[in-house]
Amino acid sequence: MINQANTLFVFLASVLVFFMTPGLAFFYGGMVSKKNVVNTMISVFMITGLAIILFIAFGYNLAFGKDVAGILGLSKSFFLNGFDLKAIYSKETGITLLTYLMFQMMFSIITPALFVGAIVGRMNFKFLIVFVVIWSTLIYYPMVHMVWTPSGILAKTGVLDFAGGTVVHINAGITALILSVFVGPRIGFDSKSEIKHYNLPWVLLGTSILWIGWYGFNVGSALTISDVATQAFLTTTVATGTSFVVWMFLDMFIKGKTTMIGLRTGALCGLVGITPAAGYVTVAGAFAIGAICTLASYSFIHFVKPKIKLDDPLDAFGCHGISGIVGSLLTGLFATKIVNSHIENGLFYGGGFHLINAQLIGTIFTIGFVGIATSMIVFLLKKIIPIRVTREDELMGLDLAEHGERADYGVDFDLEK
Amino acid sequence: MINQANTLFVFLASVLVFFMTPGLAFFYGGMVSKKNVVNTMISVFMITGLAIILFIAFGYNLAFGKDVAGILGLSKSFFLNGFDLKAIYSKETGITLLTYLMFQMMFSIITPALFVGAIVGRMNFKFLIVFVVIWSTLIYYPMVHMVWTPSGILAKTGVLDFAGGTVVHINAGITALILSVFVGPRIGFDSKSEIKHYNLPWVLLGTSILWIGWYGFNVGSALTISDVATQAFLTTTVATGTSFVVWMFLDMFIKGKTTMIGLRTGALCGLVGITPAAGYVTVAGAFAIGAICTLASYSFIHFVKPKIKLDDPLDAFGCHGISGIVGSLLTGLFATKIVNSHIENGLFYGGGFHLINAQLIGTIFTIGFVGIATSMIVFLLKKIIPIRVTREDELMGLDLAEHGERADYGVDFDLEK
Amino acid sequence: MINQANTLFVFLASVLVFFMTPGLAFFYGGMVSKKNVVNTMISVFMITGLAIILFIAFGYNLAFGKDVAGILGLSKSFFLNGFDLKAIYSKETGITLLTYLMFQMMFSIITPALFVGAIVGRMNFKFLIVFVVIWSTLIYYPMVHMVWTPSGILAKTGVLDFAGGTVVHINAGITALILSVFVGPRIGFDSKSEIKHYNLPWVLLGTSILWIGWYGFNVGSALTISDVATQAFLTTTVATGTSFVVWMFLDMFIKGKTTMIGLRTGALCGLVGITPAAGYVTVAGAFAIGAICTLASYSFIHFVKPKIKLDDPLDAFGCHGISGIVGSLLTGLFATKIVNSHIENGLFYGGGFHLINAQLIGTIFTIGFVGIATSMIVFLLKKIIPIRVTREDELMGLDLAEHGERADYGVDFDLEK
Repeated sequence: MINQANTLFVFLASVLVFFMTPGLAFFYGGMVSKKNVVNTMISVFMITGLAIILFIAFGYNLAFGKDVAGILGLSKSFFLNGFDLKAIYSKETGITLLTYLMFQMMFSIITPALFVGAIVGRMNFKFLIVFVVIWSTLIYYPMVHMVWTPSGILAKTGVLDFAGGTVVHINAGITALILSVFVGPRIGFDSKSEIKHYNLPWVLLGTSILWIGWYGFNVGSALTISDVATQAFLTTTVATGTSFVVWMFLDMFIKGKTTMIGLRTGALCGLVGITPAAGYVTVAGAFAIGAICTLASYSFIHFVKPKIKLDDPLDAFGCHGISGIVGSLLTGLFATKIVNSHIENGLFYGGGFHLINAQLIGTIFTIGFVGIATSMIVFLLKKIIPIRVTREDELMGLDLAEHGERADYGVDFDLEK
Repeated sequence: MINQANTLFVFLASVLVFFMTPGLAFFYGGMVSKKNVVNTMISVFMITGLAIILFIAFGYNLAFGKDVAGILGLSKSFFLNGFDLKAIYSKETGITLLTYLMFQMMFSIITPALFVGAIVGRMNFKFLIVFVVIWSTLIYYPMVHMVWTPSGILAKTGVLDFAGGTVVHINAGITALILSVFVGPRIGFDSKSEIKHYNLPWVLLGTSILWIGWYGFNVGSALTISDVATQAFLTTTVATGTSFVVWMFLDMFIKGKTTMIGLRTGALCGLVGITPAAGYVTVAGAFAIGAICTLASYSFIHFVKPKIKLDDPLDAFGCHGISGIVGSLLTGLFATKIVNSHIENGLFYGGGFHLINAQLIGTIFTIGFVGIATSMIVFLLKKIIPIRVTREDELMGLDLAEHGERADYGVDFDLEK
Repeated sequence: MINQANTLFVFLASVLVFFMTPGLAFFYGGMVSKKNVVNTMISVFMITGLAIILFIAFGYNLAFGKDVAGILGLSKSFFLNGFDLKAIYSKETGITLLTYLMFQMMFSIITPALFVGAIVGRMNFKFLIVFVVIWSTLIYYPMVHMVWTPSGILAKTGVLDFAGGTVVHINAGITALILSVFVGPRIGFDSKSEIKHYNLPWVLLGTSILWIGWYGFNVGSALTISDVATQAFLTTTVATGTSFVVWMFLDMFIKGKTTMIGLRTGALCGLVGITPAAGYVTVAGAFAIGAICTLASYSFIHFVKPKIKLDDPLDAFGCHGISGIVGSLLTGLFATKIVNSHIENGLFYGGGFHLINAQLIGTIFTIGFVGIATSMIVFLLKKIIPIRVTREDELMGLDLAEHGERADYGVDFDLEK
C-alpha cells in the first residue's frame, strides 16, 4: 500500500520542478537581445524532450541502477524494462520507485537547461543538442549516483546535498563557465557591454516561475510531507527573501537604483544557496546563507567578472556556480540535528569539522570532476561539430539564422495588405 | 468520511485543468497576427465564465443526471439543487460528487475553447458566444454522458477514453473543422500563407501551461492518487517527450531548421494522442503513441492541409482532430491489464479485436455525431446571427472592430505629451 | 503526528497564494503606460522580499503572539525564536504552527501589493518601501490579530471573514484610496483620460494567475481538505464566473463591446466579493454575491469615479474596496449552517440580525481604523520622505527615472552594430 499523501506530494513537487524549465526559458529569453530570443528559448525548452527520452532510455539506470564502484549505476535494463517500478522506494516515504523516478526526471531536465545562460547568441544549435546528450550521460547521471545513492562515493564521505547544491547548481555552474570559455565571447563583447534585453516582464515571469518551482525542488526533496518538508519551505523562503532584499539594498546604495535585473539575480542567489541546506538548517541559518551567497555572487558579478572578461551574459556561473559553492560549504556550518535527526551537526552546532570537511571534499570533487570532464567533452566534440555559428549568423541573430523565426512582429503589417 | 488525499488530488488536478484555458489563450493569441490578439484571447477566455454558469445551471445535469436512453442525463434539478453533492462519488475514490463536479466543470471549459483556434480573425464574436452555449448543451454534455457514465451508449460498447480522447479532442477537433469550413478562409488566405505571429514567447508560455495543465487532465482522471495515476504521469510525459523530439527532428531533416512553432505542435500532438490511453498503457505504448500521432499530424499539416486549402491557422483540427483520432484507435492496440486491472487487453496484449472494435466504433460515432450535429447547429444559427464579420472589420482586425482595444502600445507615447 | 493531507493542502494553498504577487505585478504592469511598467512591476514584486523578512522578524508575533487587549499580539520573541513551530495549530486541522505561519506569510505579501495599483506612475519608490514597512507593522498585523485570532476584538463581535474580506481587501482598498488622494492625480489626468496600456496579454496572464492563486486563498483558508474546502472551491468559481459574465454583458449592452479590461475587472470583483463568504454560502449565495458585487463596482467605476475625479488608474479601490465592502456585508445575509456548522445563520437563513450587525461593525471598523491610521502614517511620513517624484521624472516615466531600465527594446538594434 502506497502512502497517498506522500505520493501526491512528490507528484505536485514534480510538476512544480517541470514548470521551472519553461520558467528558465522566459528568464533567459527576456534578457537576451531581440535577435536571439527564439534561439535562447528553444535551447532551454528543447532539453525538456531530450532529457525525458534519455532518462527513460538509460539515464535512470545510470543514476539508480546496480552500483558500479560508487561511480554509476548499471542494471540489465533498457528503457526501464528491468526495473520493478511499483516497488516501494523506502518505508519512510511509502512512495513507489515510479513516483521517485518522475521527480528525478524533472531534475535531469532543468540541470542542463541552466547552463544555456552562458552561451546565448553564439553557440551552434546542433552542438548544443549533442553536448546535452553526452554531458547528461557522462556527467549528470554519474553525479546523481555519486551523491544521492547510498553506495555513491560522495555519499560515503557524508556530504550533505538536500536538493541539488552539488548535483545541480555547482555542476551546471561549472559547465556554464567551461562552455563560455570554449565558445568565446560574443562579437563586440567587452567587459562593460550590457545586453539590451528583449523584455523585462518576461524576466520577472521567469523569476517567479523559478521561485515557485523551487518549492517543488527544495520542499519536494524531503519526499514526505513532514516537519522536514515544511522546514524546507520556511528556509527556502527566508533565504530567498533575504538575498532578494540584500541585493535590492546593495543596488540602491552602490548604484543608487533598484533594478529588475538585480531583483531577479538576488532572488536566484538565495534559491541556489539554500538548495543543499534547505532541510537541514534553522531560520538563522537560512538568513545567513541568503545574505552570504548574495554578497559572494554580487561581488563576483560586479567586481571579478569584468576583470576576467568572462562573457557569461545571464550569470549562469555567477549565480549557480558561486552561490552553489558558497551554499554547499555553508551547509557544513549551519546543518543541525534540531531540524533533521538523520544528519550530524555542522561546525556551528557542535559537530566539529567532520561535516565541513565532507562539504569541502564534495564541493572540490564536483568542481574538479565536472570541470575536467566537461572540458574534455567540449574539446573533443568541437573537432567534430563546430561549437560556434558563423560571424554572419551571429550578427544576423540566431533566431533567423538557426530557426527562421522572429520573436515577434511589432507592427500591424496586415493592415497594409 | 471522505478520502482526503484523493480529494486533494482531484482539487489539484482541477486547478491545473483550469489553468489550461488561459494557457490556450496565450498559445493561440501568440500565433495570430497583431490585429487579432485581443479577440483571440477574449474568445478563449470568455468561455471560462460562460461554461461555469452553464455547467452549474444545467450542464452537470445533462451529463450526469438520471440516464435517458443512454444519450443524456436529466434529473429534476436546476442549478444543482436536486443533487446531494456531499454524497460519495465512488467507494474506490472516496471523493464527493462535488469534488468530481468541479473536475468535470474544468473539462467543460477547455473543450469549447479548443476550437477557437480554427476561426480566428473572422468570426463574429456574438455568433461564437451563442454557438458555445448551444454546442455545450447539445453536443458536449451528451458526449460526456455517453462516454463517461456507465449507462452511456458508448460506455456500453466498452470504448476506453481515459481522459478525453473522444469527449474532448476528437469532439473539439471535428467541431473546429466544421466551423472552419462554414466560416470560410480569411481574406487573402492561400494555402502557402503563413500568419505573421504576434509573439512566440506567448506561444511557448501557452504550450508550457497546457503541458502542465495536462498533468491535471490525464493524471487527475485516475481520480485516486494511485499506481494508475503515477503511470498516467509517466506515460503522458513519455508520449509528449517523444512527439516533441520526433517533431523536432522531422523539422530538422525536412526543413533544415527546428522551430518554436514546430516544438509546440509536436508537444501538443503527444499530449492529445496519449489522452485516451494515459492510464492504460506501458512506457512502450506511450512511445509508440507519441511517435505515431506526431507522424500523422505532421503529415496532415504539411502535406494534406495545403492541398485541401483548409484555413485552420492554429491547427485545432490538425492537432486535436488527427492526433485525437489516432490516439483513440491506438488505445485499442496498446491498452493492457498490466497497467490497469479494470480493463480488458488491447490487440497487442492478447485481447483480440474486441477493444479495437470498440475504439473504432467510439471514434467513428464521435466523428459522425459531432460532425452532423455541429453542421446542423451552424447551418441554422448562421441564418439568425451572421457567422462572419464584415470585410472592413476583418481587414481592420477584430481587436479594434469587436473590442475597441489594441494588444499593446509599443511606443512611449506619453513622452510626447 | 501531523495530518499529512491537510499539511500538503495548506502547502499547496500557500504556493498558490505566493504566485498571486507576481500575478498582480503582470496584471498591474500590463495596464500602465510603457514608461512605468518596470516601476509598477518592481513596486509589487519587491514587497515579496520585504514582507517575508518583516513577517519572520516580528510580523507573525504581532499577529499571533500573546494577546494584548484584543488589538495585537506580543510574545517574547524576535525572529520566531520564542515560538514552538512544531506544535499543532489545532486538533481539527492537524497542521503545525509552521505550516499555518507559511500560509499567513503569503497573505502578508499580497495585501500591501494590492494598493500599488492606486499610485502607479508618480509615487517615490523610497516612500513606498518605508510606507509598506510601517503599514504592515501598524495596520496589517493588528488587523490579522483583531479578526483571525479568537481574542481579537473584531473576532469577538462574531464577524465572519473566511479568507480576508476585511483583513485583505477592504484594508488594501481603503489604503489605496487614501494613498491616491494624498499622492494626487498624475500630471495631465482628467476623469476621462484612459491609460494607453502597455500590453493586454500581460493583463490576462495576471488575471488568470490571480484567479488560480485565489483558489489557494479561499479554498486553503479552510485549512483542512474537507467539505468546507470543496464548497469554497465551488462558491469561488460560481461567484467569479457570474461576475465575469455579468460584467461582459454590461459592457456589451452599455458600451456595445466586450473588453479585456472589462473581463479582468469583472473576474476580480467576483473573487474579491466571495472572499469573506467562500466557506459559508451556498451556490445561490455565490451567484448573488458575484452579481451584486459586480453591479456595485461597475457603477462606482463608471459613474462615481469620474465625478469625484479619483485617479485610481487600476481600480485598486474600485475593485478591492467596493466589492470587498459589499461582499463583507452580503456574508451577513447569505452565510448558512447548511454549509458550515461552525457558524450562525445569516439574515436570509433565519439567523436574524445578529450576523449582519457583526458584519456591519467589522466593515465600518475596518474602514475607519484603516482610513484614519493610513492617513496619519502618510501625513507624517511625507514630511520626512517626499511622497511624489519630481515633475521631470514623472514625465520621463518612472522606469528610467527610478530604475534606469526600460521594459523592452522593441527594435533589432544589434543588427546595426
